[in-house]
Amino acid sequence: MTRIAVLGAGSWGSTFAKVLADAVHDGPPTEIVMWARRSEVAEEITREHTNSSYLGEIPLPESITATDDITTAVTDAELIALALPAQHLRGYLAEVKAALAPGAVVVSLIKGLERGTGKRMSEVIAEELELPEQQIAVVSGPNLAMEIARGEPTASVVACRDEAAAEHVAALCSGAYFRPYTNTDVTGVEIAGIVKNIIALAVGICDGQELGDNSKASVITRGLAEATRLATVLGGRLETFSGLSGLGDLVATCASPLSRNRTAGRLLGQGLSAEEVTTELTQTAEGMKSARAVLELAQAHEVEMPICQAVVAVLEGKLSVENIASLLLARELKKEVAP
Amino acid sequence: MTRIAVLGAGSWGSTFAKVLADAVHDGPPTEIVMWARRSEVAEEITREHTNSSYLGEIPLPESITATDDITTAVTDAELIALALPAQHLRGYLAEVKAALAPGAVVVSLIKGLERGTGKRMSEVIAEELELPEQQIAVVSGPNLAMEIARGEPTASVVACRDEAAAEHVAALCSGAYFRPYTNTDVTGVEIAGIVKNIIALAVGICDGQELGDNSKASVITRGLAEATRLATVLGGRLETFSGLSGLGDLVATCASPLSRNRTAGRLLGQGLSAEEVTTELTQTAEGMKSARAVLELAQAHEVEMPICQAVVAVLEGKLSVENIASLLLARELKKEVAP
Repeated sequence: MTRIAVLGAGSWGSTFAKVLADAVHDGPPTEIVMWARRSEVAEEITREHTNSSYLGEIPLPESITATDDITTAVTDAELIALALPAQHLRGYLAEVKAALAPGAVVVSLIKGLERGTGKRMSEVIAEELELPEQQIAVVSGPNLAMEIARGEPTASVVACRDEAAAEHVAALCSGAYFRPYTNTDVTGVEIAGIVKNIIALAVGICDGQELGDNSKASVITRGLAEATRLATVLGGRLETFSGLSGLGDLVATCASPLSRNRTAGRLLGQGLSAEEVTTELTQTAEGMKSARAVLELAQAHEVEMPICQAVVAVLEGKLSVENIASLLLARELKKEVAP
Repeated sequence: MTRIAVLGAGSWGSTFAKVLADAVHDGPPTEIVMWARRSEVAEEITREHTNSSYLGEIPLPESITATDDITTAVTDAELIALALPAQHLRGYLAEVKAALAPGAVVVSLIKGLERGTGKRMSEVIAEELELPEQQIAVVSGPNLAMEIARGEPTASVVACRDEAAAEHVAALCSGAYFRPYTNTDVTGVEIAGIVKNIIALAVGICDGQELGDNSKASVITRGLAEATRLATVLGGRLETFSGLSGLGDLVATCASPLSRNRTAGRLLGQGLSAEEVTTELTQTAEGMKSARAVLELAQAHEVEMPICQAVVAVLEGKLSVENIASLLLARELKKEVAP
């Protein structure tokens, strides 16, 4: 048996556990152990094979069990997938480290940047677990959890600096409805996922202000250019942003009524404050937490990110949403500049 | 007075006439003369300042008049904007040529490829009017006509091989709600607009088959990669496809319920034949007419365009729409390939 741990039992963690359980590959059969913070969720997954808070009635395969103890989940696991809140990841990793098997691969499913340090999740993992880059991977793409949980066909990206390790992880999650491609540009894939949430907030604000699809398409186009500029300065590759984890993820998020970040943006666009939006939503809108960290990272590298800057100003109550349209579209007549 | 002609009184021609009339610039005031094929439409525009068949109640500025005679519209015009059906453009150009003032700039608003010849509209214009490239421009971008007609803010691209000519056209159409950027990559901008319509058909087919936003985002991502491959082989530039006339236009079209091509695709996806869709829709879905020409152009240059190929097969009744999802997503596990 191949033992896999999934830490975090929200909608994406639970869905990715199902993807792993439903994967079709030549290796030995897999058993998946999830970790849920709340013991009643762990019990429901193990006994009822559902996670009704996040995935409703969708049945989870019987090869998935859950525990509320991180050490139990991680012990002997060959692969550990992390679907934890970005701002709390570092705190959990000490416990993971104590139980980590030698050679285990750690996969981040998290799209956020750590506040204060400006570190990507793969960097936080490398620091805290002291792992070499061939043991750290990232999964990202046009992956709305509910659609995948329902078995609708989806492509995705597994990124690892080591191509063979990326292929290994891809093989473990590849199946009838989930098709991963590999990429070695970990930095690009992570930055794309992080900035996407902030662009989704901006698109949501446009929704709340009842702007049309032309305006939103301009915000998406310029937003992707911002993300690309930041990533390339950090060593990421341009091509990643034309791919599934760049353009693909951005388009899926901005098209979908299921996106939390877009929903949060819509509420901001209707005039609610950041505090009111947080109270209104039950799940985290990660972009709201990462936005300032992204802006600080951009400023430290002298990268202009006007959309990100506008979103931060709205979140901090320094810019009225009524002014965002003119701010997002107002520039001098000039040549169209490539990212 | 600067005299401008707009040939074609459909939704985009009428909207662009309004954009020109509402433009704010330092030059002399402009008068705009539209040409409408049907005399009753020309009369309505001149007398009532509306074009109710295409723009409902939206009032057109009084500086716009219309005629049903091409010679009258084109005579003495400094700028001639063409919003005519792609497959009939060549037929109209002889009449345009006879009345064309020396030095006049001709602007294509048309997103189609000529069947039989595989020529882009700027190529057809250059051939028939025997104009040098500094007198031929293209306008393209995330430009859903109805939103612009209502005055919602929009960015766009004016492309001309000659930068100064592009700036001149941009100045003539720039105003409070329409912000053009310039680009010298005419080939890239035209190919982006043409292939977009075919991708919109593919996304519509996914809609009709009730596929989710993840699948549609994959189709959009790979579709843009296909368009980019074709354009770069033809001499277009990669950066154009990350911009407003590439990604921007594609996203606006694929997000909008207003898109004719997406609507046509949805009907195809629900099982209607191409003939039934044409009967059902009152306006042209240009992608249905250009798709085979695009595929032939791609094959002549040995460029793989699997999405375009699938759309052509559906249009020609050689592929059942039930098989399109697996066909669009089915590929071997492999590295994510940049366009």
